[in-house]
Parts: sequence; C-alpha cells; structure tokens
Amino acid sequence: MHDALLNRIHELRDLAGVINLATWDQETYMPRKAEAARASQLSTLQGLYHERLVDPRVGEWLASLTPSTADEQALVRVLTRERDRAVKLPSSLVKALAEAQSHALGAWREAREQQAFRLFQPKLETLVRLRREQADALGHDGERYDALLEGYEPGMRVARLSPVLSSLVTKLEPLVAAIEAKGPPRDVFAGKRFPVDAQWAFTVELLGALGFDLDAGRQDRSIHPFSSGLSATDVRLTTRLSDTQPLSAIFGTIHECGHGLYEQGFSPSDARTPLAQSPSMGLHESQSRLWENLVGRSRPFWTFFYPRLVARFPQQLGGVDLDDFLASVNRVERSFVRVEADEVTYNLHIALRYELELGLVRGTLSVADAEAAWNEKTKRFLGLTVTKPTDGVLQDIHWAWGEFGYFPTYALGNLYGATLFAAARRARPGLDGELAAGTFDGLLSWLREHVHRPGARLDAEDLVRQATGHGLRDDDFIAALQARYG
Amino acid sequence: MHDALLNRIHELRDLAGVINLATWDQETYMPRKAEAARASQLSTLQGLYHERLVDPRVGEWLASLTPSTADEQALVRVLTRERDRAVKLPSSLVKALAEAQSHALGAWREAREQQAFRLFQPKLETLVRLRREQADALGHDGERYDALLEGYEPGMRVARLSPVLSSLVTKLEPLVAAIEAKGPPRDVFAGKRFPVDAQWAFTVELLGALGFDLDAGRQDRSIHPFSSGLSATDVRLTTRLSDTQPLSAIFGTIHECGHGLYEQGFSPSDARTPLAQSPSMGLHESQSRLWENLVGRSRPFWTFFYPRLVARFPQQLGGVDLDDFLASVNRVERSFVRVEADEVTYNLHIALRYELELGLVRGTLSVADAEAAWNEKTKRFLGLTVTKPTDGVLQDIHWAWGEFGYFPTYALGNLYGATLFAAARRARPGLDGELAAGTFDGLLSWLREHVHRPGARLDAEDLVRQATGHGLRDDDFIAALQARYG
Repeated sequence: MHDALLNRIHELRDLAGVINLATWDQETYMPRKAEAARASQLSTLQGLYHERLVDPRVGEWLASLTPSTADEQALVRVLTRERDRAVKLPSSLVKALAEAQSHALGAWREAREQQAFRLFQPKLETLVRLRREQADALGHDGERYDALLEGYEPGMRVARLSPVLSSLVTKLEPLVAAIEAKGPPRDVFAGKRFPVDAQWAFTVELLGALGFDLDAGRQDRSIHPFSSGLSATDVRLTTRLSDTQPLSAIFGTIHECGHGLYEQGFSPSDARTPLAQSPSMGLHESQSRLWENLVGRSRPFWTFFYPRLVARFPQQLGGVDLDDFLASVNRVERSFVRVEADEVTYNLHIALRYELELGLVRGTLSVADAEAAWNEKTKRFLGLTVTKPTDGVLQDIHWAWGEFGYFPTYALGNLYGATLFAAARRARPGLDGELAAGTFDGLLSWLREHVHRPGARLDAEDLVRQATGHGLRDDDFIAALQARYG
Repeated sequence: MHDALLNRIHELRDLAGVINLATWDQETYMPRKAEAARASQLSTLQGLYHERLVDPRVGEWLASLTPSTADEQALVRVLTRERDRAVKLPSSLVKALAEAQSHALGAWREAREQQAFRLFQPKLETLVRLRREQADALGHDGERYDALLEGYEPGMRVARLSPVLSSLVTKLEPLVAAIEAKGPPRDVFAGKRFPVDAQWAFTVELLGALGFDLDAGRQDRSIHPFSSGLSATDVRLTTRLSDTQPLSAIFGTIHECGHGLYEQGFSPSDARTPLAQSPSMGLHESQSRLWENLVGRSRPFWTFFYPRLVARFPQQLGGVDLDDFLASVNRVERSFVRVEADEVTYNLHIALRYELELGLVRGTLSVADAEAAWNEKTKRFLGLTVTKPTDGVLQDIHWAWGEFGYFPTYALGNLYGATLFAAARRARPGLDGELAAGTFDGLLSWLREHVHRPGARLDAEDLVRQATGHGLRDDDFIAALQARYG
C-alpha cells in the first residue's frame, strides 16, 4: 500500500484515539471550568480529522490502489465507506447541524425542567429537517432512514430491520404478561446501605475475573457509565456508584466490561487502522449485552460470584439466599424510562422509538404530533399512561443530539448478543459449568476468535452469520428469555 | 486579523493543549501497555502541529498582515519567531534527532544500570553533533549555544548569561562554606512515618490557600512531579507521596503550584493564542521557585502553616518546635544529585552543567572527556569526589533527551524569582505579615499584574525589568539567601 495513504490511515486512527482521550477526560477528571476550552480542543481535533479524511489526495490514493491482500481490500472498503459519507456532506450542512444540536440541547434541558415539549419542539423540527437533508445528500433508495441507519449500522436497512422488530414485539408482549402475572419479587436491597468502596472493589474483582486487562485499560467513575477505546492497549471504562443501589455499579461494570473486552480484543496487527474497530454500534452493543445480561444475570454466574458479593456485604446480604438475590437481579416490570428498563421490556422501548423515528424521517409523523404519538405508543407497547414528558418524549438525550437511527442499535445488540451467546454455548457444551466455576476464558476465546479479532472486516450481520450460522433474528433472544423467565 | 490566520492560531493552541493532555495522562492514568500507542498518538499530534505551523500559507498570511494593535503585533512576533525556527529545521534533521533521542534514552538507562558512561557516549556524541547542526541551521553569531538557548529562553545569550552565573558562583561558595561551618541541623523527620493520605490532604489545603483554583485545575500523583497547562482553565499539577519524606510532597506541591498559578493567570482574552504562555522557561521556573523557596521555605509561611501541619501529624511533629522544623526544611548540604539539592547549592549544579554544555556545543570539550570533566567540576564547584556515574554525568535525563541549553533556565528561574519577589515586597511592605496570616492574594495579585497577565508579550528579561526595575542579576537572590542563612 502507498506509504502516504498508510501514514494518513495511521494519523486518522491516532486522531480518533486522542478524541476519545479528550472525551474520556471530559467525563472523568477534567476540571469544571475547562468546559469551553475542551469544546474548542475537541472541535479542532474533529475538524482536523474531517479535513484529513476528505482531503482529495486520499481519494486519489484510494482510487489508484489495487489491494494486494484480503486485509488490504477490507481496509480500503472500510475507509472508502467512511470517506464517501464525509465527502457527500456539504460543509454548510455540517455547520448547520452542529449549531442546531447545540441549540437543541439547551432547549431540551429547559423543556425537561418545565415539563413542556413545546419548548423543544421547534429545535427538534430543525434537527429532523436537517437530518432529512443529510439523508438526501448521502443518498438512499427512497427510504431516507436507511441513510441515517447506515451511519451507525452499516449495511442494515429498514426493510430488513422492521419485520424482525415487529416479530420481537409480538413475542415479548405475552412473555411480559406471563412474568407479571407471577407478581413482583421481594426487593432484597430495600432500606440497606452498601458502602461504595466495597462496591468498587467488587467491580474491580469482576473486571479481573472476566478477563479485562487492567494493564491495557482502567476503570474510573463518571455520572453516566461509558467505555472508550483509545487503542486496543488503552481501553477506558467507567461505572457509577450509589450506596443504595449496588446493582447499578455491578451491571454498569459488566456492561462496559463487555465493550472493553471487545476493544482489547482487536488484532494487534490491525493497530492504527480502521479494521481495529467494530463494524457497527449494534455489534458493539452485542458484546456489552451478552456479558451484562446473558452472562451477568445468569444463575451460573452468580453461583460463583454471589458468595463473593456476600463476603463484601455480610450484614446486608448475609441473610439473603441466592434465589431471592437472583429474583431481585432479574426483576421484570413495565416502566416509562428506557435506561431503567429490564432486559425483557427493554426492546419494547426501542420498538416505540423506532416507529416514531421512522415516521419523523419519512415525514408521515410531524414533530408537533410526536408527544401524542409517544404517549399513544407507550400505552400500546407498555400499557402505561404517560403523565409527564420526562417520562415520555423528553426522556432521552439522543434526539437533542440530533441522532436518528441510533436507538435500533440497542435492540440489534440484544439480538446479536443472544445469537452469539447461543452459538458459543453450542460450541462449548460445558459453558454453564465454566461460568459457575468463575472461568470465563473459554467464552472469551470464542468471542475473540469469532467477533473481536475480525474487527471491521465484515458487516455486522455477515459477521454474526459467519460466526453462528444465523443472521439477524429474534429466536435466540426469545429463547434465552424463556429459559430464564419461562 | 485575517480570519484564516486566527483560525490557524487557535488550532495550533488547541493542538498544544491536547498534546499536554496526552502527556499528562501518560504520566498519571495511562495503563502500562498503552506506551507504544501513546507514542504514536503524540507523534501524530506533534507532526500535525509542525505541519500546520510551517504551512507556507501561514507565512503568507503573516507577511501580508499589518498589525493594528500592540497585542496583534506581539502575537505576530511570538508566532513568527516560533515559526521561523520550525521552518529553518530540515525535516531530515528533525527525523534524525527524534531517532537519536529515542536510541539515546535506551542507552542512558542501560548505562545507568551498568554504571558505565561508555555505553551512553556514542549516542551522546550523535546528539551533540545533531544539535550543533541544528544550531547552524537556525543561525547564530558565532556562538552555537545561543541558537539552542533561544529555544528555551528567547532573547538570552551566552554573553549575557555567563558573567551572571560566574558572579553567582563566586558569591555562593563562601556562603555555602559559612552555612556548613554551623554543622547540620537535627533531622526532625528521621525514623517517622507520615501517612500519605494526610500528606495529600495537606497539599490540597496548601493549593487552596495559595490561590490555585481547583475548579480550573487539579492535582494528581506521578513519579516525577510536573505541571501542565491544557488551557488557563485547565491546569494539571502532580505531586509525589513518600511516607518517610513529607517534604517531598509539600515542596513538590508548592513548586508545581507556582507553575500552575502562572498558567491559570494568563489573560482570558489571550485564550487560544500564543500570548497565553510564558515567554521563557526561565520565567516559568521563576514562579515555581518563588513560591517554593522564597515563600514556602520562609518563617512567615510556616508561622501560619506549621500548626496546621502539626494538626495533621500530631504524633510525628507534636514535640518539634517551629525553629527545628524550619532548620530541617532549610537544610543546606553539598550533594551529588541536582534534583535533591537545596536552594543554596542548587545553582552550583547548574553552573557545572552550563560550562560542560558550552564546551560540548562549542566543540572545546569532547564527549569522550565529558565524564572526567563532570567529575573535575564536581570537585571544583561542590568539593565532592564522584565515585559512580549515576552521581555524576549520568544523573540527568536532559542530555539523553538531546536537550542542551535547558539547564540554565533553572538558574534563571532562581534569579528572576528572587528579583520579582524582592520587588513584590517593596510594593507591599506588609507582605511578610500577610504570609504569616496565611493571606496570599496580595502577592498573587502583584504577580498576576506584573508577570502572569502579560503572558508572552515581552521577553523574559524585559518583563522582569519592567516589573522590577532590574534585569537579570544575582543580587536579589544572594540577598534572600543571606537573609535566611546569613
């Protein structure tokens, strides 16, 4: 490969890593008054990234290249796709979007404080309009939403996604009803305090046991847990600690650890290239959901870890048996707020948002009607009556960021995660026993080989199909829920 | 000013801030295995900085500009000077230097382990040769060292510096002898343990009291204390904690706080421009030395803080009176290692290095003779006989970094710091009383006005002259030592 092109590829990945560092620092250690300076620094880095990516010479280098290996071909494909999207966006639209997002965020916060969607509505209208323009600039086959979805989930299309989500909703509704009919489990945490230092120590124990390399990454605290790969040898996770809700830290850590194991698992020979990344947000989310829900909420997992947790909280949990603890961990309940939803009802929240976004982007739903539509769908999907916008249309920050097409990747993560986990169990019939013995390297090796090492060589669904024999489907996810709750 | 030029100026300062973030993180929180990835990221950032600085368009924008204000004129002067140096360096030399530095560092570490200068010698020869080439590429009036010194201390010249350092050495030698004649003070810390958590809390108390804004900066731990300004609203300090040597954390913190107060004191209207920086390393060091030595080792300072320190360490210091504590804090002793030297003997270490560097860069001293010359000068300046290279020619990392001309800035810091502090005391006759009352904002305001706010508008000596009526001289420094030790 042309030296100049390879240098540019390395430079872009280095810049991406530094952007992740600056963002991580912003959420962890940055002093309060540095907000404006950091915004400038990030804007400069992102501007340089964009400029060095759309640089006409990169187009020429790519055009004049005849890939000599499959890896080189994959590299060129991934880079070309990213670059083509960037080139197609007029800078006037990029600028208008950045401004609209900035205004929308302020309006969204104000609207939440006032519980008044109308304060956010005009900003949301602008964002929807600009995103529709963006979709047209990027190009599509008549379905604008596809062009946006492509930014998060390359290769995925509405025509492929919609029937799967519909099927999923149809199967979830009776399942939720059946679980609810059993009545709520006892809350084993109510009224107890769990010192945060002991919680922290337990999360670090978890990270080590699950295989997260703390010499190639770290964990810190932040308000909202997240993970960020500065490189495969430098993966930052965060968790949040609350002294009344220990599950928040525990499942926050396991979730981010799933992302982190993925980031640490990219092939060293792909370092500083766009192959050392996930092909999609949905596939990335499959790794966090797999570890959080399919492993982390399972009986085998807690067979090993519950005695260790009790040892850290003997007074709080000494009298609680494993069954009651597991029931509390796996409590299922229809609720208004997505980020607090359990693994069973979660996808109903996504289906609701997906339908609304599709309507907004297609133009069949007006922003003025979005609040009513949200409330109507909450009734339909969750059987609940929204009484305030922060429980409804104002609850998520994503639209205020101008992100449309992002939500479905959470559901894709659940579905891909279940399909991958089912395949890993088929490949390792003794997996449950391994988990119950606190041995996770068998599962991790399987994921390394089939999901992590390939990086961005294949689109997400192709990778999942190659790894499991199945593409996108809800069967494995539903089967996992039925096994746990049925 | 041309919009494109101003944008470029902002971009360069943002990049500089991000380079500082990446370097800070490297020394504080970066996981061990990220070393290679971070080296790439830093190299990419530095390469971009260089490329965007030497960009011919920047030269054209600067050339076509007629500054309309004094500030604009200063900005153009500072930027042009930095750019001219960068433009003059052939990229082949930049690359050769980077490679030679990288090899030299490894050899220096190996040579230290083996106590064998000969292992380092060939690498040092290469570095000296390249730096001489660099000096010639940059241009000079026959004194190559001037071209290197200019990189750290713009405007300073050998012809100006040498006589001042000679005078200083002449005055220090009898002073050291007189102090030593009194015999060593009692060591009030010997055999005691000082829990590091309490030390940390005391350093944070110090930072707050001295006026460091912890909402616009932070303190962390690192192996070697340092400070770094990511912007005036984001200044990172580090300190080091040892449970047997509490003075290490205390004076490390005060020293870095001095740097940090300077960085926080740049004018907000200079943000994202090269005016929001120190004109020289010597002037920067004047701020750390002023707070560390002239304030932090003084009786008024400890009149206020010693009871607070005792309150944190009642068992260790409860029986130690202020006089004994002060004597321990101000212990003067000839020693081999610069970084452990007291404020009196410190400049003798610098004078030694300065003479050697001057010889190496002029070509009157060969690298092969450097070890013998170091040992001879240690005998002459400090009266000590070097018995191992890590106590002598291999002790500092600076030459392994290829830095020649850096050491004198430490001495300049001591001299400028004393001259500035003397002027502040003249301007505020009640200053000692303020310090004894734990009130530091009078001193800080004076420094803000005369040193911090001006930023890089004047060269260091011109700024000191404007602030104090005196340029570079040793009178104030010697007077301060005589007042404390005489």
